[in-house]
Amino acid sequence: MATGKINVSVENIFPLIKKFLYSDHEIFLRELVSNATDATLKLKHLTNIGETAVEYGNPIIEVKVDKEAKKIYITDQGLGMTGEEVEKYINQVAFSGAEEFLEKYKESAKDSGIIGHFGLGFYSAFMVAEKVEIITKSYKDEPAVHWICDGSPEFTLEPSDKTTRGTEIVLHIAEDSLDFLEDSKIRELLKKYNKFMPVPIKFGTHKENLPVPPDAPVDYQPEEVEVDTFINNPNPAWTKQPADLTDEDYKTFYHELYPTQFEDPLFNIHLNVDYPFNLTGILYFPKLSADLQVQKDKIQLYQNQVFVTDNVEGIVPEFLTMLRGVIDSPDIPLNVSRSYLQADGAVKKISNYITRKVADKLKSLFNENREDFEQKWNDIKIVLEYGMLSEPKFYEKAGSFVLYPTVDGKFYTLEELKENLKDTQTDKDGKLVVLYASNKDAQHSYIVSAQEKGYQVLLLDSPIVSHLIQKLEADNENVTFVRVDGDHVEKLINKDELQISKLSEDEKEKLKTALEEIVPKQNYSVQLEALDSNAAPFIITQPEFMRRMKEMSASGGGGMFGMGNFPDMYNLVVNTNSELATSILNTEDKTHQEALVKQALDLAKLSQNLLKGEELTAFVKRSFELIK
Amino acid sequence: MATGKINVSVENIFPLIKKFLYSDHEIFLRELVSNATDATLKLKHLTNIGETAVEYGNPIIEVKVDKEAKKIYITDQGLGMTGEEVEKYINQVAFSGAEEFLEKYKESAKDSGIIGHFGLGFYSAFMVAEKVEIITKSYKDEPAVHWICDGSPEFTLEPSDKTTRGTEIVLHIAEDSLDFLEDSKIRELLKKYNKFMPVPIKFGTHKENLPVPPDAPVDYQPEEVEVDTFINNPNPAWTKQPADLTDEDYKTFYHELYPTQFEDPLFNIHLNVDYPFNLTGILYFPKLSADLQVQKDKIQLYQNQVFVTDNVEGIVPEFLTMLRGVIDSPDIPLNVSRSYLQADGAVKKISNYITRKVADKLKSLFNENREDFEQKWNDIKIVLEYGMLSEPKFYEKAGSFVLYPTVDGKFYTLEELKENLKDTQTDKDGKLVVLYASNKDAQHSYIVSAQEKGYQVLLLDSPIVSHLIQKLEADNENVTFVRVDGDHVEKLINKDELQISKLSEDEKEKLKTALEEIVPKQNYSVQLEALDSNAAPFIITQPEFMRRMKEMSASGGGGMFGMGNFPDMYNLVVNTNSELATSILNTEDKTHQEALVKQALDLAKLSQNLLKGEELTAFVKRSFELIK
Repeated sequence: MATGKINVSVENIFPLIKKFLYSDHEIFLRELVSNATDATLKLKHLTNIGETAVEYGNPIIEVKVDKEAKKIYITDQGLGMTGEEVEKYINQVAFSGAEEFLEKYKESAKDSGIIGHFGLGFYSAFMVAEKVEIITKSYKDEPAVHWICDGSPEFTLEPSDKTTRGTEIVLHIAEDSLDFLEDSKIRELLKKYNKFMPVPIKFGTHKENLPVPPDAPVDYQPEEVEVDTFINNPNPAWTKQPADLTDEDYKTFYHELYPTQFEDPLFNIHLNVDYPFNLTGILYFPKLSADLQVQKDKIQLYQNQVFVTDNVEGIVPEFLTMLRGVIDSPDIPLNVSRSYLQADGAVKKISNYITRKVADKLKSLFNENREDFEQKWNDIKIVLEYGMLSEPKFYEKAGSFVLYPTVDGKFYTLEELKENLKDTQTDKDGKLVVLYASNKDAQHSYIVSAQEKGYQVLLLDSPIVSHLIQKLEADNENVTFVRVDGDHVEKLINKDELQISKLSEDEKEKLKTALEEIVPKQNYSVQLEALDSNAAPFIITQPEFMRRMKEMSASGGGGMFGMGNFPDMYNLVVNTNSELATSILNTEDKTHQEALVKQALDLAKLSQNLLKGEELTAFVKRSFELIK
Repeated sequence: MATGKINVSVENIFPLIKKFLYSDHEIFLRELVSNATDATLKLKHLTNIGETAVEYGNPIIEVKVDKEAKKIYITDQGLGMTGEEVEKYINQVAFSGAEEFLEKYKESAKDSGIIGHFGLGFYSAFMVAEKVEIITKSYKDEPAVHWICDGSPEFTLEPSDKTTRGTEIVLHIAEDSLDFLEDSKIRELLKKYNKFMPVPIKFGTHKENLPVPPDAPVDYQPEEVEVDTFINNPNPAWTKQPADLTDEDYKTFYHELYPTQFEDPLFNIHLNVDYPFNLTGILYFPKLSADLQVQKDKIQLYQNQVFVTDNVEGIVPEFLTMLRGVIDSPDIPLNVSRSYLQADGAVKKISNYITRKVADKLKSLFNENREDFEQKWNDIKIVLEYGMLSEPKFYEKAGSFVLYPTVDGKFYTLEELKENLKDTQTDKDGKLVVLYASNKDAQHSYIVSAQEKGYQVLLLDSPIVSHLIQKLEADNENVTFVRVDGDHVEKLINKDELQISKLSEDEKEKLKTALEEIVPKQNYSVQLEALDSNAAPFIITQPEFMRRMKEMSASGGGGMFGMGNFPDMYNLVVNTNSELATSILNTEDKTHQEALVKQALDLAKLSQNLLKGEELTAFVKRSFELIK
């Protein structure tokens, strides 16, 4: 039996690890299972390259909890360690060799998917254990050894009678960490961190120390608490080649990632790049529901199949954080802050790569099956529109697949829109006027008027649409967007057409004076227009510019300063060719005239969703009186 | 000149620091200024307790950038170090003494506000510097020394001719960190981390190495790039006693914390506790605007006046993260994960303390000036209501200050409400029925009906109100909440009053049959009621239970599973005592009868905001026809 002292430098390594290196104690299990995986893959690598004649077989990793004895076992069938290697890796490496090890790890990871960084990870065991044992036998023909350390610098190293290849770690769980002895806790952690690790992991309850009941029969066998089960999928979809995967495989993997999600994803994007950084992964476009906040941050980040975090802020561009899926890359720095990530060149490249891949995929989906793409449009548009506003590189590519739907379900790209509308919707100054509604219900009467005039009306109902329109106008000189209630239908697209008025100038003057006495000035500006005699007699419109600026200011990051506080201003367009206009003009009875104007104004307000509260109650009461 | 080797243990300390201890390189400045502050406060402590006869004076800390020479200087006038102390603290402590130091620091912090943990912090200099110098002279009568280290384990230590007390750190900035040589960057960092540190910090540009122009006159003085300025407020409000602060002082400090905020806060809560943990701070209730998300996470966390983070998740209860202000506590573990924080007992106590203090303050504000409290209610209610739902301890206390406003601006506590309504709003089963509206405009006609009946109607318009009501009902056995459109006014509070119908049973049967042929069954269930003959002929109601469950399910975390997908179901209440009912009954002409019913249904829909889109357009068109 040899007794020694861990390198004096690490005398106080344990409290430091507790305080600084890993703030989350649960990480110990991830680290130890990673080490076991590493040891297994290293052996595989050595057999593959013919460096050893040992049979690789079908090694697994076993995790067992012995609650009675307060122990956790992690056992692998990997390459094991000789006594000399234990001295080197466990007793000496620790801090002093970490950098060298990290360097080495980078290379080996590229070769064979080895996870590595044993040095630091192993010591995380002391975050939860008061005593740690290593029983290990190397694949080389050397005796097994048994290392025991109680967390002080003192350790013992003695021969062991272990005959099978590999390493067994025994954790004697400390009093303040007894919750890790719950099967459910360990199962949860293995599912969280090791769900896709490349070596099969078996988890069950260790029974050897279970107490035998006093009245036990001779052939007593302790009852199985839970049947041993394999915890992980060692070959997750993202590690495979896209050519080897069917649509069904991608969907199956999606549900494996999100077991509580019932709906299928819309489509996926397989990421796969070696240079200048290493990254694999699968991103899914889910059907988005109304509450965007709760849907963010579902993408899982892995490093060599070890789960790291589900916070990919800074790695994935903001607009794509509403997607789901996995990203696996050894090249993303961990344990670093957001601001550091944002400044990191490699991370910036990764983010740009992801943006480009998403854009390319969208373009190919559009080209391959436009009809299908159109059907998915409503579920993906918010992501794409946000991307156009926030990522210039995405905006550049978006022209070829971003769609503009009409209220009756046709879909145009911007170029198609220009081509299709140019004959009917170009105004007298040569400007193409694109009409849109933000709500089919609320703007129904305006939409109908525009359609009757032969115009197409887009349905642009995303919350950020005013910002997008603003940007599109800036980048497309001769295109302007006007909401369908921005003016009455003859002026929406001003073609300088002759309007013939039934009323003389004098009559118009008289009508206007009468109207302005009744209609409240602070909200409505009265405009007489000679429209079609069948058009509505009173129409309330709201000029595009002001309304858009207010919307932009309300949804943040645009518009004009203080615009949000301006009162809403409307135009009351009165159709001088309508019968009602004539009636109002010719009514001598002032009371009756006022009643007519007020009722007509109320009806116009109804069409613009402006009749509310007390006014609406009075209107309804009056209208009930009319029909009783 | 002495040459030595830093303790072999820290041979690879630098890469490790870079990789693990501080992910954010900018932290170096905070650490070095903290050390300087520490050295100054230690000297103050020693002079205070009479351990040294040295004159403390008015020491400051100076930070200078010399961009040409790529150097940053941090100079203090604190206790300095002797050669022996440099050996001990700089060359030896590092990792091996960290734990002891952290322990020691805890004690001294309690005594005199010392910041401490020199050991680790100092080495963060190597994150940005390729070479670091320390020139230091102790307050003891010993020679000054000059230590130089290039980041390798080799250092030199030689005598220095520095004659003034204190320590000067010289950083030779590495090529990859040259952005730290920008004045604006350093100023930004000092403002971020050191804005409230307890020793005055002066920042200017170091000119000694600026190149002299070739044609410079004999008396050439380099131009001041920026006048030296003091960066910090060494005595921020939260370090003072509440008795020494006026309302104006609190407001001034608020604007110092949030220079871009123009509006004053509503009120503040001064936190101050020594035991069982140490915590000071000031929380402010701001006026909340509609977008709650952007207003979260404005509270700043300090440790002994050093800024740590503005993420107080896990420390401050979720519902209070919408507040603003500062919390200063040496007892909150840093660099740890959310889940760790949530499990930490000390942090839980801090969170409970804050909750209690906020509740106490609200109670005293309510008691001292109820009118003022009522005026602020709309700006604070969302925080309080969310607190009642999420923190049982807050809920317990909330009864004494949470208000329930009526639609006409009266405010009641729950107890007052019970007392006030019991005579008029108790139903036949002895249950107190509290009526409420969620929107004064949208439910206007229903509110008016209830008021005409002599009922009080609350205005409960927060997004989470359905959850709150559910909880209030569960905890107040004989109280039930019903939205004002939950039934017609005679049934809202069922008092078993006799209703006399003008129509016979046969007539009712005939009317009902006629109505059910016209009114769409899938949305409306027709109910005949003998109401006041002046009440509306047709009224659409929506039963409370179903609507509330749907709302809860929509706003998340409650209601019944899948409830959100149920179609909206309404009751169409037809007043058999209305003239219109008689007209409908007596109309032989089926077409006219249908027109009457449809118009009446449309009017009822208008009152319930259900007439939209095509239906509304048709209604408006028809109504214009009627008046032309």
